[in-house]
Amino acid sequence: MKITSINSLHEALISDLPVNKVFINERRRDTRIKKITDLCKEKGIPFMLIPQIALNKRAGNDNQGVFAEISPVRFFSLDEILKEGNDRFILILDSVTDPGNLGAIIRTGVAAGIDGIILSRRNSAPLNETVLKASAGALLKAKIVPSKNISIEMRILKEKGYWIISTDVKSGIPYHEYAFDMPTALVIGSEGKGISTIVKKYTDQFITIPHSDKIESLNVSAATAVILFEAIRQKTTQGLDKS
Amino acid sequence: MKITSINSLHEALISDLPVNKVFINERRRDTRIKKITDLCKEKGIPFMLIPQIALNKRAGNDNQGVFAEISPVRFFSLDEILKEGNDRFILILDSVTDPGNLGAIIRTGVAAGIDGIILSRRNSAPLNETVLKASAGALLKAKIVPSKNISIEMRILKEKGYWIISTDVKSGIPYHEYAFDMPTALVIGSEGKGISTIVKKYTDQFITIPHSDKIESLNVSAATAVILFEAIRQKTTQGLDKS
Repeated sequence: MKITSINSLHEALISDLPVNKVFINERRRDTRIKKITDLCKEKGIPFMLIPQIALNKRAGNDNQGVFAEISPVRFFSLDEILKEGNDRFILILDSVTDPGNLGAIIRTGVAAGIDGIILSRRNSAPLNETVLKASAGALLKAKIVPSKNISIEMRILKEKGYWIISTDVKSGIPYHEYAFDMPTALVIGSEGKGISTIVKKYTDQFITIPHSDKIESLNVSAATAVILFEAIRQKTTQGLDKS
Repeated sequence: MKITSINSLHEALISDLPVNKVFINERRRDTRIKKITDLCKEKGIPFMLIPQIALNKRAGNDNQGVFAEISPVRFFSLDEILKEGNDRFILILDSVTDPGNLGAIIRTGVAAGIDGIILSRRNSAPLNETVLKASAGALLKAKIVPSKNISIEMRILKEKGYWIISTDVKSGIPYHEYAFDMPTALVIGSEGKGISTIVKKYTDQFITIPHSDKIESLNVSAATAVILFEAIRQKTTQGLDKS
């Protein structure tokens, strides 16, 4: 859904609708626009000041100097995806910037039956139609928790007994040596930069997927699939392995 | 590399260069063109008869009624990727039609250190720049064996002691219950249609990846990653598991 009026945009923001990104005419500086940029900052929604011509290209000519797209996804709160027991698994996507990768990871996450996905909003790909298509529709079935600052969610998860697991090529143990028998929050970093400093600080265990040195790295969605299904495999074959 | 002359195209075909697909002016019916279509049929390279206008769009106006693109990939023969011993793993891609998936699978295959990839040419995505990009360059490091008819390669592989493993949701055992301790040729079917009848005939063992019923299927490249790295995990932890 597209929003081109200031009132609708304001309403969408205060109602916590899943606004992907806000575009504003760079010349507008009144109090209503100020309110909108303040709300964006408060909620961690990226916004850009651009020339009116560029705005018209996105929004069509009939706009009030603002443009935003609302994602078809219903967002969840962290509380809604928290459970009890040891069989808990949450995915945290730090900055997955490629919409194809993001969609593929969401599809794999839903296939693996995880409890939900915490999505850092600042640097991640917006949840648009490309992501929806790449997810083969799984985006609409996923429980997505948008996050302005994932250190807040990581702190809460640690308090709730989750182990924060991150992938790191240099310092990680092989992923299959890690016992996925505790509540787990698996952090997936950006395709290029990997895990951020703040995530490192909160990480309880680094893991890595050993692979041929013919390539530099595994694709981030392939890596996620390998780790998620290893966790499932361990749970399924637990009795056998421990005998 | 683009080919727009009849002589170059003929040369490329008899030299077994990796020609992706051939386009020919539908009105041309001389013996030289006949030779080219015969060669295409013999080598399993798809060709299309199209109007000259459509041809010009692809090839530019300076063409001799033919157009083809040569893949940047060096092809291998089946013999070149066959090895001795139990630590042998070949991937067979039956009809992976999406170039993004094909590239991702090739990248994962190279990362998993497999011996080579047999690629059915008839229905697979052509090895073009999209595949190269999706593979993050791994396409140039992969040992690709083009196949006109994979039943020929499957028969040879069986004679050489390989086990043909295919994914099938209905009749397969969980992939992690299969012991990857014999030479393996893993067949990956098309995204939509799955495994073809001919492959079923040659398959020694069907496997499946159990997943949440919230989605219909795993993405084909995610599934390939999960299976390939399970095979590696088994080899790595063999001593531990069998104790």
